[in-house]
Amino acid sequence: MTSPRLWHPDPKLDLVLERVIDVPPGLVWAAWTRPEHVVKWFCPAPWSVSDCEIDLRPGGLFRTTMRSPEGKEFPNVGCYLEVVPEQRLVWTDALLPGYRPSTNPFFTAIITLEPRGQGTRYIATAIHRDEAGKKQHEEMGFFQGWGTALDQLVAHVKTMM
Amino acid sequence: MTSPRLWHPDPKLDLVLERVIDVPPGLVWAAWTRPEHVVKWFCPAPWSVSDCEIDLRPGGLFRTTMRSPEGKEFPNVGCYLEVVPEQRLVWTDALLPGYRPSTNPFFTAIITLEPRGQGTRYIATAIHRDEAGKKQHEEMGFFQGWGTALDQLVAHVKTMM
Repeated sequence: MTSPRLWHPDPKLDLVLERVIDVPPGLVWAAWTRPEHVVKWFCPAPWSVSDCEIDLRPGGLFRTTMRSPEGKEFPNVGCYLEVVPEQRLVWTDALLPGYRPSTNPFFTAIITLEPRGQGTRYIATAIHRDEAGKKQHEEMGFFQGWGTALDQLVAHVKTMM
Repeated sequence: MTSPRLWHPDPKLDLVLERVIDVPPGLVWAAWTRPEHVVKWFCPAPWSVSDCEIDLRPGGLFRTTMRSPEGKEFPNVGCYLEVVPEQRLVWTDALLPGYRPSTNPFFTAIITLEPRGQGTRYIATAIHRDEAGKKQHEEMGFFQGWGTALDQLVAHVKTMM
């Protein structure tokens, strides 16, 4: 079996946010892959990102610390799987850096970027183990959360232009 | 943080089988990556492999069905993470094909091959979530099992030469 496209989302298991944004793929890529940018947009306000560490290669670390409005911190650790500059970024929390299986797997994320005029067709896909995982992510506010974060990303990228 | 070597095994969590074998990396690679070869050696006799399916790319499927001497079948599904011909093969059962988190993660495997004269320095590393996982794999007979499978691989490869 060789399917030309492995990544077709399964509507029962996956969540997809797709939007065309008016900033170019190169800057969106920078916003996703450089800690000094990630901290500016990754968490929907009034939450914020207090720390971010990135080792941008397959098997490398993607770590963010989210801070609640009350100041409580929540660390997240993931492992990059694919790093194709300005096109495709894949990471998962099912693995720790160096591909070690994690104790609390929840999802894999695929960000794809395609040029659209001066802007970008942006697709974020969250891939879950089962329907319960998808439902939980949806109830946690996936669409609003990732949508607001994307608004923040666009606003931040415009300060970089 | 950028470590030049992500893959240094942790002796508390990982199991490593290292050996120099007298067959070349190209044939060892073929033995690992083509179903018609995998079925010949992958399971220590009297167990066998009754079926194997391979989609050799990051995110692709690695599936084997192991058959007990009594004829009972045990399917295993994993996902390739890195595919560097004749050098490095990484897959995990913590993810299904397409990087979907699996329900029963156990380990990630890294096979590295280096030329040594006419032969190969062969290193198989099994990376576990925790000490219990390592212990379980050790008690399942990791060293004897993977060692016997490697003997079978070498014997099979010699029929290909």
